Amino acid sequence: MLTPLKRKSILVVGSVALDTVETPRGKATRVLGGSATYFALAASLFAPVRMVSVVGEDFPRRYLNKFRQRRIDTAGMKVLPGRTFSWHGRYRENMNEAETISVCQNVLRHFPGVPAHYSDSRLVFLANTDPITQRKTLKSVQAPSLVACDTMNLWIRTQPAALKKLLREVDILLVNDAEARMLTGRNNLPSAVWALLEHGPKTVIVKKGEHGVFLCTGGELFAVPAYPLHQVVDPTGAGDSFAGGFLGYLACCRKITPRQVRRAVVYGAVVASFTVEDFSTRRLEKISLPEVEKRFQEMKRMVRF
Amino acid sequence: MLTPLKRKSILVVGSVALDTVETPRGKATRVLGGSATYFALAASLFAPVRMVSVVGEDFPRRYLNKFRQRRIDTAGMKVLPGRTFSWHGRYRENMNEAETISVCQNVLRHFPGVPAHYSDSRLVFLANTDPITQRKTLKSVQAPSLVACDTMNLWIRTQPAALKKLLREVDILLVNDAEARMLTGRNNLPSAVWALLEHGPKTVIVKKGEHGVFLCTGGELFAVPAYPLHQVVDPTGAGDSFAGGFLGYLACCRKITPRQVRRAVVYGAVVASFTVEDFSTRRLEKISLPEVEKRFQEMKRMVRF
Repeated sequence: MLTPLKRKSILVVGSVALDTVETPRGKATRVLGGSATYFALAASLFAPVRMVSVVGEDFPRRYLNKFRQRRIDTAGMKVLPGRTFSWHGRYRENMNEAETISVCQNVLRHFPGVPAHYSDSRLVFLANTDPITQRKTLKSVQAPSLVACDTMNLWIRTQPAALKKLLREVDILLVNDAEARMLTGRNNLPSAVWALLEHGPKTVIVKKGEHGVFLCTGGELFAVPAYPLHQVVDPTGAGDSFAGGFLGYLACCRKITPRQVRRAVVYGAVVASFTVEDFSTRRLEKISLPEVEKRFQEMKRMVRF
Repeated sequence: MLTPLKRKSILVVGSVALDTVETPRGKATRVLGGSATYFALAASLFAPVRMVSVVGEDFPRRYLNKFRQRRIDTAGMKVLPGRTFSWHGRYRENMNEAETISVCQNVLRHFPGVPAHYSDSRLVFLANTDPITQRKTLKSVQAPSLVACDTMNLWIRTQPAALKKLLREVDILLVNDAEARMLTGRNNLPSAVWALLEHGPKTVIVKKGEHGVFLCTGGELFAVPAYPLHQVVDPTGAGDSFAGGFLGYLACCRKITPRQVRRAVVYGAVVASFTVEDFSTRRLEKISLPEVEKRFQEMKRMVRF
């Protein structure tokens, strides 16, 4: 079903980070993280990926190699004087929300432009960065067939106007449940989803962590549970890995039908389930398509009645 | 698919209450409530129901009539001198958990025995009461083909030994996610479910409110989302309505197979979705099987991929 010859290129713009993460399962210090990182490693399982991001001079070469091993085009990833964006977070027993201990923008303030040869990208993922950078990146792509974006509470609060402008230009909005509620002021999730559709995107995807994913497209709702795991080690990057699996699968589809969008959601959920099994990108960077396919089939058995 | 001639009798033991409920959508004062109430009204859509409960002299006759209109056998529902069990609760914007403002056991302290003609009941639902009453009721039934029970944080905390004894005697345990975590000390839900199976029940069902239901039976997991509603008016009774739809459907099945258990879960979720659309039993007491069937089919469309 995955047709390698017809795979379209995906451009992702977002952060590459050095994360320090504490969870009830342990701690990882200055490990590879960032929205573009998780997305790129996940999507590159399915299709060619091009990254736009920025790191500092302290960024370890061995992390760059992880992208190259997956044949990710890193021409759009600039190395600037200064330090790499860093985040230090902690998860308590309830793994659904991180507590930020510290966050340093560092070189992320100087977001680079898009290399000329990226302009023919067919799919675009505007991972969580400020909406002005997201729009600027989008304008550099000539004729994308599909544009998806993510956002976060910070931009909803500080840049609502720029964010609403962006939403009119994207096909798919991916948010988590808290963001969906915050963006619309509606506590009821199905109602929040309908309100989000009025902002422009034809498709809205709400990521609910351990409770799965909720999709609305073409007037139809689709819901899928999370892949059941007996232990979550580190939930960081689950949302961006989901997006990577989701758009990666769609990049392999000849035609994007509502059925393919549903299947893409399940592929996204499956890829995310691997990510959270270990700290940072450790598990994600090792997975293979047959492993993904196996969990996809398990999901099929898990929901049928 | 529902074969009326073969429907088995269901016995339920649990509370009948006068509830005062406050939600962001309004307030209802001294309205019909209680675990046995919601269960019986839901299950009686599918099969004959027999109730064991107790009310006080203040219990309005018009509420009794609601049971009789659904041909529920109320011979086991005693009227005792004193006041009916009452609960006053409040839900905030997040409808997932109620805050108890006051609770008065009243006549519920004097739980009645089981009428002799109930002893041939085929299905038994031990709704949320203390585990000693639940076991005593169970012993009055000669040869039940299926026994399900619910419980709550109060009994998990105050009567853990009696509860564990009960769990060895039931086929199906229904709990909500917080109770599953509390009973097992495990925060990860799939892991908590496996731990619950070790206590005795062959089937464990975890109700997750707006996030749907999680089932484990015969070594297989099944997950289904909640029916998506644009407005929840009052979540009280959702869990017992779920149990009523679930066991009601199973009472119509000639043979209880894993596939029928999955379908029963979906019928339970659908019946619960009606309950929460209005205060008390107002919506539940008006629904018809064709309405239930319509939402069942919608659920089927909502999860397929």
